[in-house]
Amino acid sequence: MGTSLNRVEEEDYSSYTNSSDFISISLEDNNNTTTTATSTSKSSSELHPVCLPPRVTTWQKLNHRLREIFFPDDPLHIFKDQSWRRKLVLAFQYVFPILRWAPHYSLLLFRSDLIAGLTIASLAIPQGISYAKLANLQPIIGLYSSFVPPIVYSVLGSSRHIGIGPVSVASLVMGTMLDGEVSHSNKKDLYLELAFTSTLFAGLFQASLGIFRLGFIIDFLSKATLIGFMAGAAVIVSLQQLKGLLGITHFTSDMELIPVLESVFNSIKEWKWETIVMGFCFLIFLLVARFISTRKPRLFWVSAAAPLTSVILSSLLIFLLKSKLKHVSIIGHLPKGVNPTSENKLYFHGPHLQLAIKTGIITGILSLTEGIAVGRTFASLHNYQVDGNKEMIAIGFMNIVGWSFSRSAVNYNAGAKTIFSNIVMAATVLVTLLFLMPLFHYTPDFVLAAIIITAVVGLVDYKAALRLWKLDKLDFVACCCSFFGVLFISVQIGLAIAVGVSVFKIILHVTRPNTVVLGNIPGTQIFRSLSHYENTTRVPSFLILNIESPIFFANSLYLQERISRWVRGEENRIRENNESALKCVILDMTAVTAIDTSGIDAISELKKNMDKRSLQLVLVNLVGTVMEKLHQSKTLDSFRSKGLYLTVGEAVDDLSSSWKH
Amino acid sequence: MGTSLNRVEEEDYSSYTNSSDFISISLEDNNNTTTTATSTSKSSSELHPVCLPPRVTTWQKLNHRLREIFFPDDPLHIFKDQSWRRKLVLAFQYVFPILRWAPHYSLLLFRSDLIAGLTIASLAIPQGISYAKLANLQPIIGLYSSFVPPIVYSVLGSSRHIGIGPVSVASLVMGTMLDGEVSHSNKKDLYLELAFTSTLFAGLFQASLGIFRLGFIIDFLSKATLIGFMAGAAVIVSLQQLKGLLGITHFTSDMELIPVLESVFNSIKEWKWETIVMGFCFLIFLLVARFISTRKPRLFWVSAAAPLTSVILSSLLIFLLKSKLKHVSIIGHLPKGVNPTSENKLYFHGPHLQLAIKTGIITGILSLTEGIAVGRTFASLHNYQVDGNKEMIAIGFMNIVGWSFSRSAVNYNAGAKTIFSNIVMAATVLVTLLFLMPLFHYTPDFVLAAIIITAVVGLVDYKAALRLWKLDKLDFVACCCSFFGVLFISVQIGLAIAVGVSVFKIILHVTRPNTVVLGNIPGTQIFRSLSHYENTTRVPSFLILNIESPIFFANSLYLQERISRWVRGEENRIRENNESALKCVILDMTAVTAIDTSGIDAISELKKNMDKRSLQLVLVNLVGTVMEKLHQSKTLDSFRSKGLYLTVGEAVDDLSSSWKH
Repeated sequence: MGTSLNRVEEEDYSSYTNSSDFISISLEDNNNTTTTATSTSKSSSELHPVCLPPRVTTWQKLNHRLREIFFPDDPLHIFKDQSWRRKLVLAFQYVFPILRWAPHYSLLLFRSDLIAGLTIASLAIPQGISYAKLANLQPIIGLYSSFVPPIVYSVLGSSRHIGIGPVSVASLVMGTMLDGEVSHSNKKDLYLELAFTSTLFAGLFQASLGIFRLGFIIDFLSKATLIGFMAGAAVIVSLQQLKGLLGITHFTSDMELIPVLESVFNSIKEWKWETIVMGFCFLIFLLVARFISTRKPRLFWVSAAAPLTSVILSSLLIFLLKSKLKHVSIIGHLPKGVNPTSENKLYFHGPHLQLAIKTGIITGILSLTEGIAVGRTFASLHNYQVDGNKEMIAIGFMNIVGWSFSRSAVNYNAGAKTIFSNIVMAATVLVTLLFLMPLFHYTPDFVLAAIIITAVVGLVDYKAALRLWKLDKLDFVACCCSFFGVLFISVQIGLAIAVGVSVFKIILHVTRPNTVVLGNIPGTQIFRSLSHYENTTRVPSFLILNIESPIFFANSLYLQERISRWVRGEENRIRENNESALKCVILDMTAVTAIDTSGIDAISELKKNMDKRSLQLVLVNLVGTVMEKLHQSKTLDSFRSKGLYLTVGEAVDDLSSSWKH
Repeated sequence: MGTSLNRVEEEDYSSYTNSSDFISISLEDNNNTTTTATSTSKSSSELHPVCLPPRVTTWQKLNHRLREIFFPDDPLHIFKDQSWRRKLVLAFQYVFPILRWAPHYSLLLFRSDLIAGLTIASLAIPQGISYAKLANLQPIIGLYSSFVPPIVYSVLGSSRHIGIGPVSVASLVMGTMLDGEVSHSNKKDLYLELAFTSTLFAGLFQASLGIFRLGFIIDFLSKATLIGFMAGAAVIVSLQQLKGLLGITHFTSDMELIPVLESVFNSIKEWKWETIVMGFCFLIFLLVARFISTRKPRLFWVSAAAPLTSVILSSLLIFLLKSKLKHVSIIGHLPKGVNPTSENKLYFHGPHLQLAIKTGIITGILSLTEGIAVGRTFASLHNYQVDGNKEMIAIGFMNIVGWSFSRSAVNYNAGAKTIFSNIVMAATVLVTLLFLMPLFHYTPDFVLAAIIITAVVGLVDYKAALRLWKLDKLDFVACCCSFFGVLFISVQIGLAIAVGVSVFKIILHVTRPNTVVLGNIPGTQIFRSLSHYENTTRVPSFLILNIESPIFFANSLYLQERISRWVRGEENRIRENNESALKCVILDMTAVTAIDTSGIDAISELKKNMDKRSLQLVLVNLVGTVMEKLHQSKTLDSFRSKGLYLTVGEAVDDLSSSWKH
């Protein structure tokens, strides 16, 4: 702290009293405040003294502020007052949430998880393959990514429903960004190296966000934004699946609505009726199964078993009719075996490092927003908390270990109870990689497309969007922005616009705050909004205004003008109705929870302005920090005589009785 | 409005009462509210009913909101209840503020304005020439720009101190941007066309901002930011003047601190001692004159006359010693005459149109922020209001007519009283252009540099910066950001960073709001912060929290966690002190002035959470809009029985008496 502050601290923290015969300040020892309370209550029997809050140093303030920003959940409170042994156990449980639920794991949970794990596994294989294609990588790499990372997340993660695997959006962005600089067909090895390196950087970025407790940045993804984003992403991913469903061979890898639709209708000659008929049959089968399960939760196994059934049925069909259905595209040959570590395939030097870092950060943010947002959506459906910062560390480590993203919607729909389902899934993928790959040779692409569409269709939550429209128009606008942004521009821009709209909404509320005229409920000391409570009445000669926002630079001029306008309006009203003249303007400052230097200037400007009109300006119920700042800037000095009160009622009583004398 | 809303509107707006024998809702005719007031007051003698605000349609809400955003100052109120003739006069006065003050113009004001006008004129010529050089234009064009635009502003503008002329920052940016694409030395005519076109676009952009009443965007330039910006710009402009003061011939046109200093010290061989000695003598003379005038306002004429005196003295000196002082750089030959209109020099087609538009918008924003901010600073020094939107239109028209910016600091320091000083200045410049140009032939560059430094040195307001540090650390950070941003990065980036910090501050306040525990002042119904007022006491079995912010997506999770933590802390405290168990959590919602869908969800989550802990959750003093949204989302239904009160006191009384029975 500089010398300028010491000067302030040396001033006495005084209590402001309003009785006219007691204007001098009662000097107050900060550690002995009871004396002030008595001295002031002596001087005026009915008034309660307005005093400054206890002194707090800048360092204490900063400390408190930083704690609230970075540790609002007080993550270490479980360790308080515990034995050393217990502390150790708790610390392990904190770092590895698996230790918390593993001991209570039951057979019933196991059954759900087993089914969920198997279901996701039956999805992980086709999805892994198709997403790898989107990122211009060999199918087998997509499959590997469904094996190790889920185990890492199971041990470290705190969301119970998150399903881990490569996600379409991040895969697409990575593919587009890397392919722009390094061709995947000409420089195969370099491309692969860059893909692994980007993933490592994505993981490092995510983990460091979590470690430095910057998880609160994801609070800026409001539910409204996410509803739009998920719906948009679901529509895009579904449209991408038209490739498999219509049997098209040449298809765009773009993510926007228009190129995808163009690609669908330009290749109308490639459409194959056999694929279309069978594809839509399986799609309808899957959607019906899903519909049954959502209507009757007891029949959850119907939708859980449907994907695997479809895969088996369709593979059999193609195998049996292979001579007649030559045109139907199938997965084809898949090699067996487990992947070697990608350690020696990292790229840490040379001209493309910057590209790898940039791609890493962008895909890192994308998969993080999606992963955590999805986890949080399901968490709020089931009333448990997701620790954003820990979640980021878990996802980050997952990406450091292997290349991977989320597939939560499927997991949730498949009835997952704990993340043990991820372990089941990983084990199944491992078994598949080792032994069962040839069985999928005849699985047709259209059934994979149908499964993906069924999985993402639940993300289009039109009911939630309708609720937004009903409750908050601006939230609905934010939702629409992210939806159309994702559809027509790009995923990143869509999200950026939506966050922008949400932040703009906060700013707008602060820039143009409400000011409300208060009236008295007759026979009481209660003052409430005249327009809200119709049993309130105006107090003659008083204009009582409630300022409904902190006073910042962005609204200080507006509030000055608006208050002047209220006074002008009230004087006109009084003139028209021939009522007694306006003598006093009371500002109820309860909701003014903060003030900056522009706000302080606005208050003193207003005071001068009211003095010129010979009106008394009174501030009521100043919040601690606001009072402190007004005191430090000497603004409060001009309010010392009958300018500060604890309640509106006391202000009205005291001032009107003083006018009578 | 969609069908979803109609459903809500058909529901009855009910009043929520809390007496246990009167849980059913009193159906209320919206036009006849007195019945409700009586029916509820009958049922519970001491409690005051909590009711919904009168119904307002979405259209009315939108209308109100848009009015507050775009017409907060109610600009047409002066026309209300006036005769047609008077209305016409007022309309003219509104469009041309000159009509407002011209009739009251006095000889005394004229004297000040004459001196101010002459002083600025003596500055306008050297400044016009040097700024034109910065923008790579012929000196004569800079001089023309000091002639027409001030007259336009005098008629349309509302600031009384703003001085109009080309401003260094905008000139520099324009020069750098245009020269990057079209070389000013090779393609002289094209460059000139582009410069005129950019200025036209700057004017159109500024005027349209004003016409569409988007002036409120300049509210985001807080005083704190401006203090830093002005100081930074003053330092840069002063350092640029070292060229003239040290007699350097090869100098950078960059605007950042480091290239300017490099340029100064790299050309150390070019320094000329005669120039340095004379330059610093005149600089000291001017600074002393300025110092005398600021100390003793009566001696304002000392600083007003000093620049002209310096110019005359130095020109005479150089003229007399011209054989000995050959190395001193002088203005040299200036052609006489008035400029032709630039109409046929506009560039509306071809490959560089985009460049012209971009340059126009950027210089438009720059000159606008500076112009209006300066006007506003002087307005608040003299307690009059500047209408941001009208100001923008005036500055815009000014730029459409000619190429021009502001020189307010000089104008203010020279003692300008009304913008008539601009007319005097323009007239003087006209006379100079027509007849007196040859007289300035021998005026040395160093005296011009000294005059500019003296003019901008007053913009470095270190006292204001110290005050910021004392009152608001974050404001001080914003100030430093804009100062160092301007110095080390660039003017645009510096301003952007400063606005970013200011907005971040608002967001931070909303993201991490305060929650305060309230206590009762014994013997009253008043509840105030326990940590602020030391004469308050806790109410046994109650935890009373004041939420000091609207509940938005950005803080809904934080608030949920924080309130849970308060409850946990309170329960621990009670256990340690063996007090009576916690039964009820009261949230004082006075400062919760808005809520969005995430906030609504947070409230119902919190209610469920408290129900699980078998604690009663009570909301007190809901603001109209918040209450409406909670009602529409059915959240309020779960609070119907003893969950809503008008004041904390009533809640405590009613609940504790109901527990006794």
